[in-house]
Amino acid sequence: MKIVAAQDFDLRREVEYGSPEQNAAVKQIVQDIKNEGDPALLRYTAQFDRTELTTEHLRVTEEELQAAYAHVEPSFIEAITGAAHNIRQFHQKQKRNSWMDLQPDGSLLGQIIRPLKRVGVYVPGGKAAYPSSVLMNVIPAQVAGVPEIVMVTPPATGGSEGIDPYILVTAAEAGVTEIYRIGGAQAIAALAYGTETIEPVDKICGPGNIYVALAKREVYGIVDIDSIAGPSEIVVLADEQANPAYVAADLLSQAEHDEMASAILVTDSRELADRVSAEVQRQLETLPRRDIAAASVESYGAVILTETLDEGISVVNRLAPEHLEIMVEQPMNILGRIENAGAIFLGPYSSEPVGDYFAGPNHIIPTNGTARFSSPVDVDDFIKKSSMIYYSKEALLANGKTIMELARHEGLEGHARAIEIRLEQEGS
Amino acid sequence: MKIVAAQDFDLRREVEYGSPEQNAAVKQIVQDIKNEGDPALLRYTAQFDRTELTTEHLRVTEEELQAAYAHVEPSFIEAITGAAHNIRQFHQKQKRNSWMDLQPDGSLLGQIIRPLKRVGVYVPGGKAAYPSSVLMNVIPAQVAGVPEIVMVTPPATGGSEGIDPYILVTAAEAGVTEIYRIGGAQAIAALAYGTETIEPVDKICGPGNIYVALAKREVYGIVDIDSIAGPSEIVVLADEQANPAYVAADLLSQAEHDEMASAILVTDSRELADRVSAEVQRQLETLPRRDIAAASVESYGAVILTETLDEGISVVNRLAPEHLEIMVEQPMNILGRIENAGAIFLGPYSSEPVGDYFAGPNHIIPTNGTARFSSPVDVDDFIKKSSMIYYSKEALLANGKTIMELARHEGLEGHARAIEIRLEQEGS
Repeated sequence: MKIVAAQDFDLRREVEYGSPEQNAAVKQIVQDIKNEGDPALLRYTAQFDRTELTTEHLRVTEEELQAAYAHVEPSFIEAITGAAHNIRQFHQKQKRNSWMDLQPDGSLLGQIIRPLKRVGVYVPGGKAAYPSSVLMNVIPAQVAGVPEIVMVTPPATGGSEGIDPYILVTAAEAGVTEIYRIGGAQAIAALAYGTETIEPVDKICGPGNIYVALAKREVYGIVDIDSIAGPSEIVVLADEQANPAYVAADLLSQAEHDEMASAILVTDSRELADRVSAEVQRQLETLPRRDIAAASVESYGAVILTETLDEGISVVNRLAPEHLEIMVEQPMNILGRIENAGAIFLGPYSSEPVGDYFAGPNHIIPTNGTARFSSPVDVDDFIKKSSMIYYSKEALLANGKTIMELARHEGLEGHARAIEIRLEQEGS
Repeated sequence: MKIVAAQDFDLRREVEYGSPEQNAAVKQIVQDIKNEGDPALLRYTAQFDRTELTTEHLRVTEEELQAAYAHVEPSFIEAITGAAHNIRQFHQKQKRNSWMDLQPDGSLLGQIIRPLKRVGVYVPGGKAAYPSSVLMNVIPAQVAGVPEIVMVTPPATGGSEGIDPYILVTAAEAGVTEIYRIGGAQAIAALAYGTETIEPVDKICGPGNIYVALAKREVYGIVDIDSIAGPSEIVVLADEQANPAYVAADLLSQAEHDEMASAILVTDSRELADRVSAEVQRQLETLPRRDIAAASVESYGAVILTETLDEGISVVNRLAPEHLEIMVEQPMNILGRIENAGAIFLGPYSSEPVGDYFAGPNHIIPTNGTARFSSPVDVDDFIKKSSMIYYSKEALLANGKTIMELARHEGLEGHARAIEIRLEQEGS
């Protein structure tokens, strides 16, 4: 791995907005689904997924779900229910209550917290259909109390209507309430506007290709969407006592995701830097996805060698990585000084895959430096808040004149009069 | 006011995305500020605000603030500090702590909650410079603990560098830490990318014209932005015992904002419908902003007459209004059935201006039906969360094989090996 100076390194990569042709294609698909509904949905599914469906076959049936359970080995079901249990437990701690503040003048002020009513989760087809991503998108919604959670995923190409049984089982365990075999921009548009068969949702989340991403941007405002994830990133902050083999393995577990993924070691130890570099080369040799991982290490990987650990902490805060592992002798001594990182893994046993799959926190985490201002997916992403004001007569009489002064200062006489008319009729 | 059937009515209006020329102009301004910094900022300020500044004069000085206090009448300062006190109290109840979950196997899982470090607040110039909006944008950030809150507002045109003293006083009372006399797309770009004089921020909020809105969209991803507000809306849900003069005054207090504002009465009482319509006409006659209010009532106002109050509640939930007033005999009986509304005002004394200016809850509230999935501005908009995983050796040894199974199922051997290498070295 190349050793670079801290100031020469930035995690941020250009965000892809798609070509003009891709944008135009997506706009057309979204318009057609909005205007025509099911017929357009079936037409595009035939065109892009090479699957001829009828409206009766859009929704996955209970029998198909049962068949999926019969097909999947028990050890997988056990693993996925174990992970789901942990993820559910962690997210349950994020739940909040509506609250009310009782004022001495008799007024009640508060915030009402409610789940969204209906959420759509996109799951890509083929090799990108990750059961762990289904858990991470669905469980926070389910814990928030969303009563209707709709999954969409493209049918297998080549005329089969089948959907990966592992995905079906995972969806059922996570708490999905409806599944439709549709994908691409047409699925996003169907979730946003609804069709004769599919009721519209309030929010759409889940990863997808560039067409899915563009379609989500296109329907934003009609529904809410999640943020669009960039390539994955890991920064390992380590001192001389860190195990180089562990550090290298963790760096490679990110690098294998994507040629644009980024794996960085930040250390004040020249010896560790050299040993990790050697370990990365050694471990790469036998890695099945070594071409991807090697390209990632070559283009976006680096060792940033610092004078001190303090300087390393500054580098981490500037990079604001998606994943941060802290492998120093006393990791808890550093935690309080980490200002920007999406997920923080502390100590030698908190290898990043622990969080990707099992521990409980969400694995959908801000990328591309956005951990400076955004957060991992959690229950808050599936609730909405309403303010509540139950003003008392006493409060209005006491504060009415002040409110009128502020309204008149802004030139909004109608606002002032809405108060004045009450003071005239209710005042003594 | 016209009486319409519920199904014929929708609050949603087309969102404005600007002309191609406006988009191109904004892209150019943002690029120039990003590449050149201060020189471009001064050039655009001279061009659009007709004010020749030097870098030394970009920032408002302590002396100018003192002069503003001397200029503003004490009753305004008293009113604004009273409002600020209430808004601060309400938002303080939204603060949350970082938390940690201690697992029986020794692992620690948690969520770390931190304020954003630096936030920019845009305040429009001229008549749209509302002190109340300064309070509503700044106080939640300040309560969240944001240490640096930067206000930008265009200089008065015509060569004066002056800024409205009421805005300056309000900014100081709210907790703004720096003020710059810049506006338009150039101010947004300067906040996002920074210049020699202005440090970049993590988030930009506050209302502005179409150029400001387009510039915010352009820099989104580099920084966070708030959502772009549509025209204001009020729905009043009332029964036969409601005071028609109060209802009419509250409807007009929204209608006077903007010709595209929407004011709707939903009632099961034909008599109330008629009396409110008559009152609206009567009160309109003497309203200073009657042309605006009348146009709003004509185009986007309506009475929706329902068979029952239950039907009225359904209408409200479908409209998902920004502001909802409930003026029925027992408003608390209805609160639990309101699913979608940004802010809910209960009873005869909770006139909407009470919330616009003074009671405490935020007046920046989702419009255009988006209360189905979004929320009024609050402290959560100025914090970020990091997940924390401190896995124990015991937990890794107990769960490592399950994690490896899930990783291998997804074809991510590198993930599995990051666990396996530890099991080999640490396992017994």
